[in-house]
Amino acid sequence: MTSADHIRDTVRRYVETVGTGTAADVVALYREDATVEDPVGSEVRVGHAAITEFYAAIESLDTSTELLSIRVAGNSAAFNFRVITRFGEQTFTLEPIDVMTFDEDGRITSMRAFWSQDDMVVS
Amino acid sequence: MTSADHIRDTVRRYVETVGTGTAADVVALYREDATVEDPVGSEVRVGHAAITEFYAAIESLDTSTELLSIRVAGNSAAFNFRVITRFGEQTFTLEPIDVMTFDEDGRITSMRAFWSQDDMVVS
Repeated sequence: MTSADHIRDTVRRYVETVGTGTAADVVALYREDATVEDPVGSEVRVGHAAITEFYAAIESLDTSTELLSIRVAGNSAAFNFRVITRFGEQTFTLEPIDVMTFDEDGRITSMRAFWSQDDMVVS
Repeated sequence: MTSADHIRDTVRRYVETVGTGTAADVVALYREDATVEDPVGSEVRVGHAAITEFYAAIESLDTSTELLSIRVAGNSAAFNFRVITRFGEQTFTLEPIDVMTFDEDGRITSMRAFWSQDDMVVS
């Protein structure tokens, strides 16, 4: 089993690369056969190609991110983070709670993001 | 599907009854065949009898609780809450992130709590 510190480190890098990295940077943190369900209840994306498509859609946006809290249990983590997206004159702030599982090498094997449009704050 | 407001209301009542209610009060929020995994990675408790046993263990403690944040997605919720337990001269503070699923009537069908001993703050 991967250590709690390793998991925390991967989550920190995930939040950071979602804010400043490319889609490829983010996807490199996932295992090849990983799954992404964002938001929970939507279609599950399976594998690097489908996951790359997902992050490519947000890659070009002007975003900044911050990890707010993280809890590690076994080979899983739940964490709350802030994503601020600037688009023209407007700022969109979202604070999802994500749940991830990890393999023995600390790679993400699944991600599920809990949020809805109601949680988006526009200013 | 139960509404997001109904889910939020059930989570608020859950956090409140964990702080001030009896084990029976908490268990009444769960469907008869519900599952509890607390913390994630530990044995899964199935059904009202096993879940009652779990909450009975904390029923007599002097605790207070507060909901910190909640995200609803589909028939699921993830939320961060604070549990403060006073025991003699010491205060134990824990802020787990829980994930729950709900049935059509807003009853909890599963709960998974993300936290570890490392997250416990003793003061």
